[in-house]
Amino acid sequence: MTLTTMTRHSALILIGNEILSGRTRDENTQFLAKKLGELGIPLREVRMIPDTREVIIRCVVELRAAFDEVFTTGGIGPTHDDITSPCVAEAFGVPLEHHTPTFTLLENHFGKENFNAARQRMAYLPQGATPIENPISLAPGFSLGNVHVMAGVPRIMRAMFDNLAPRLKKGTPVLSITWHVFSLYEGSLAEGLEAIQNLYPQLDIGSYPFHRENGIYGVALIAKGQDSAAVQKAASDIRTLIAATGGEPIQGEPF
Amino acid sequence: MTLTTMTRHSALILIGNEILSGRTRDENTQFLAKKLGELGIPLREVRMIPDTREVIIRCVVELRAAFDEVFTTGGIGPTHDDITSPCVAEAFGVPLEHHTPTFTLLENHFGKENFNAARQRMAYLPQGATPIENPISLAPGFSLGNVHVMAGVPRIMRAMFDNLAPRLKKGTPVLSITWHVFSLYEGSLAEGLEAIQNLYPQLDIGSYPFHRENGIYGVALIAKGQDSAAVQKAASDIRTLIAATGGEPIQGEPF
Repeated sequence: MTLTTMTRHSALILIGNEILSGRTRDENTQFLAKKLGELGIPLREVRMIPDTREVIIRCVVELRAAFDEVFTTGGIGPTHDDITSPCVAEAFGVPLEHHTPTFTLLENHFGKENFNAARQRMAYLPQGATPIENPISLAPGFSLGNVHVMAGVPRIMRAMFDNLAPRLKKGTPVLSITWHVFSLYEGSLAEGLEAIQNLYPQLDIGSYPFHRENGIYGVALIAKGQDSAAVQKAASDIRTLIAATGGEPIQGEPF
Repeated sequence: MTLTTMTRHSALILIGNEILSGRTRDENTQFLAKKLGELGIPLREVRMIPDTREVIIRCVVELRAAFDEVFTTGGIGPTHDDITSPCVAEAFGVPLEHHTPTFTLLENHFGKENFNAARQRMAYLPQGATPIENPISLAPGFSLGNVHVMAGVPRIMRAMFDNLAPRLKKGTPVLSITWHVFSLYEGSLAEGLEAIQNLYPQLDIGSYPFHRENGIYGVALIAKGQDSAAVQKAASDIRTLIAATGGEPIQGEPF
């Protein structure tokens, strides 16, 4: 039997000064990381960058060449610091265009008298872009080639991603099995774990120690990858290793 | 009077598959972003990358050339996926060396019989590195040139950063003043806000809408920068703008 896994990789660009200043804690990476793993398009790089034209353009150009899919969040609202759309247009070398269906949608929503110049900016999309519907605040994101531009507000981003997901080309889902053990340090498990990694080079075998304020410590050991039979075998080997080292293997996340 | 602000910029590299897979939510960026703003070395870019040799090396080389200081978290433990130290050594073109004081410290801590090959790896540092003390689990981080390598476990990272901070060359602290307003959309404030940004080009004037599940919405408007007199004037202008648009300006974070 030959195993066919289709490996597709993605990158995420979080655009906005508020994360870099520590004002806002990023809630979008974890959501997208899990969803993209399930879709078989796992995240391989995330960049958090400021609302700076040259930085955004350089980042989009670089990452869309390096990854199958690129997602962005942030910078598509009506204010002066919302510059993602023109930057993505420039990264693709296409003009921003008045998008009539979006203009009509927003004009009806805000009313003619409140649909001011700032809000009208949200009705301009790069030439050739496909809108990503926004059921919450209406102004859409868009896909252009392999770049998918979404809002930064987590609730809106999640709604946009739900609309985008069915259009994405899927790969083989990532399977992950976790064992926890308390009161063992990873240094005691390291040698055996490396041997397991060497048995399954197509997987990520990870070791994540924890040290709580209350003195509780231990390690989470994870087998992860797109070859599900190998993930299951490696997880079984990890279980055996923990028991052989004198620990009690606990499956899943005990917290 | 001339104003002298010393602008120093930093970047952060979060190394580890566990954030990219969504297993772990990043807790380190927000802590470091705030601390580095206070020290006048604000974060300008964050990258989350996997435990992959070429990616780590390329990232360190690129960011240490582009920024005054570079911080890394993750990948300095005893297991096979902890490869940050050799990668940083390679990025600087120096060998990894047996670091005798660290070796002695860890050997005394674990005891000779438990100080196995995996744990001994933590006593190797790049040639010329200065250890960053780790009061919790003892194995140190290190500084090499403008690159500062810390643990990924948040509690250990924070303790290491507290030890590192006094050695960092400081810049002018970043001051930030926030106004909130409920029940206004940023589209109504955008034009006035852009005019304020144009008055103070040395500042970041930011607009951050929020939309809660319970239907509550509004905007946070922020003046931020290293020119504290200008930040105060811009914040006062923002307050006036909110009131003139029919909103009630609330200082700080009302949540």
